[in-house]
Amino acid sequence: MTFELTILGSSSAIPTSKRNLTAHVLNVHERFFLIDCGEGTQLQLRRNKIRFGKINHIFISHLHGDHIFGLFGLISTFNMLKRDTDLHIYSHQELERILTEHIQFFERNLAYKIVFHHIKPEKNELIYEDEKITVETIPLKHRVPTCGFLFKEKPHLKNIKKNVVEKYQIPISEIQKIKEGNNYLFHDKIIPNTELTIPAYKQRSYAYCTDTAYSEKIIPIISNVDILFHETTFANNFKKLAKETFHSTAEQAASIAKQANVTKLIIGHFSARYKNVEIILQQSKAVFENTFVAEDGEKYKVDLQRE
Amino acid sequence: MTFELTILGSSSAIPTSKRNLTAHVLNVHERFFLIDCGEGTQLQLRRNKIRFGKINHIFISHLHGDHIFGLFGLISTFNMLKRDTDLHIYSHQELERILTEHIQFFERNLAYKIVFHHIKPEKNELIYEDEKITVETIPLKHRVPTCGFLFKEKPHLKNIKKNVVEKYQIPISEIQKIKEGNNYLFHDKIIPNTELTIPAYKQRSYAYCTDTAYSEKIIPIISNVDILFHETTFANNFKKLAKETFHSTAEQAASIAKQANVTKLIIGHFSARYKNVEIILQQSKAVFENTFVAEDGEKYKVDLQRE
Repeated sequence: MTFELTILGSSSAIPTSKRNLTAHVLNVHERFFLIDCGEGTQLQLRRNKIRFGKINHIFISHLHGDHIFGLFGLISTFNMLKRDTDLHIYSHQELERILTEHIQFFERNLAYKIVFHHIKPEKNELIYEDEKITVETIPLKHRVPTCGFLFKEKPHLKNIKKNVVEKYQIPISEIQKIKEGNNYLFHDKIIPNTELTIPAYKQRSYAYCTDTAYSEKIIPIISNVDILFHETTFANNFKKLAKETFHSTAEQAASIAKQANVTKLIIGHFSARYKNVEIILQQSKAVFENTFVAEDGEKYKVDLQRE
Repeated sequence: MTFELTILGSSSAIPTSKRNLTAHVLNVHERFFLIDCGEGTQLQLRRNKIRFGKINHIFISHLHGDHIFGLFGLISTFNMLKRDTDLHIYSHQELERILTEHIQFFERNLAYKIVFHHIKPEKNELIYEDEKITVETIPLKHRVPTCGFLFKEKPHLKNIKKNVVEKYQIPISEIQKIKEGNNYLFHDKIIPNTELTIPAYKQRSYAYCTDTAYSEKIIPIISNVDILFHETTFANNFKKLAKETFHSTAEQAASIAKQANVTKLIIGHFSARYKNVEIILQQSKAVFENTFVAEDGEKYKVDLQRE
């Protein structure tokens, strides 16, 4: 029951020799969700040994080149590898037109189907759901319509204590109800659920927020997440430039993390001007201690914990 | 007076964890000519410390995605870096439409001018010339119209021997003529040019041939080049598949190199099926001993030599 984030690219619009363009992969129970797809994403997937066939869902935050130019090559490579399962892309409507025109010119016959799901980045809404997780949009504040994504496990069921099935002769038909929290009637005696179960695992969650200016509106949506990725394009001294370009400083990202009471903050989408991002890390830590710097190829796992 | 090739990507259509998509850079006297531009080229330029500002000319062999998908990001990055010098792109006419539409959507204002030079890949013709070199197209045999490129230094002048200027009292006005091979009249005596000069440096040359099936038609165009890059997508046992897909085997590339009497053959554009290309190298060497395997980041210099 894995819940693990892999950073594929941590640069902002201009890549550096060490930082690729933006893309993250979230592994939820061996389903791999690709979030943004900057140029070189397919190469980073290869280097990080993430199998192409495991990716069926791609989420795109906004239509700036540094977040999508990797789609062309990825779609092409999927085709050459004779992919035949549907590929779902969650993005602004305009991307469908762009990709469709591209595919018409560059791919004679696409062997698989691309299913476009148009999202409205200005709203917080549920855009994906399966038996394990939900994905919601997080409206962000950028120069073009942009949203982040909140990935959240569905509630886990409680676990039945050892021996109680035998002790109270619980039939299989009742097990599910007890896991859901119900008590159990045994020879006219109510056995409380707490005596039968151990607490469920906590729902794990990941919020991806880039590109964005400082926006307190996202706080209620992302509150208490296990991992928040929030962009820090700039160090604090560039607060004015951050505002003008609708990006965030270290202090702003950390302030959002603190107010939202998240467990862990990962910062990234660094301007190419920073060869060393230590200053940005220190400025973030000054406000929110549990800050980590996104590095290409780094993985962040959220372990299962009881409630 | 550098003449140096850098391999940026050596994979064929599907990149691997070690081989990027196709792009080469030729440094001729500190002018950097980019040849093809697969996805990730801007990242490879960074890693190989080739300054973006040095690239003013890009040559595109054909309109398959693995040779051009890096253009979108490169054009965008040039813009963000506030490039203001013209960028010349030599390619099939259709690329102008594709890039123009792209730029209209993704780049609000392009701060520099892109000058498109339409080439006819089916003809061997001069497409670029400056005071140092010429570039000609090499018609290739692929599924879509494709050409290679022949980069050739212009003839060097001879060098004047030490002391002869003083000995024969040669005025500055005569120096250029002597360098061009003329004799010199000194007190009614003809001094032969060989007594006045040492031989000129040889013209250095590089031929880039990918993607292509075996084609003997290219031999007269590329004969005697210092470096031939010829694709070897497949080992010899895939001769049939090579023919069907209009690619070349090791033996075919080596045979072209041998017939064209080139000095050095570099093979590349390897199918992603080869984790190890030793077999392809051995098969090429069996026909043409002076074969080298293209590796990403590798440089091949041609030193100056007297005729």
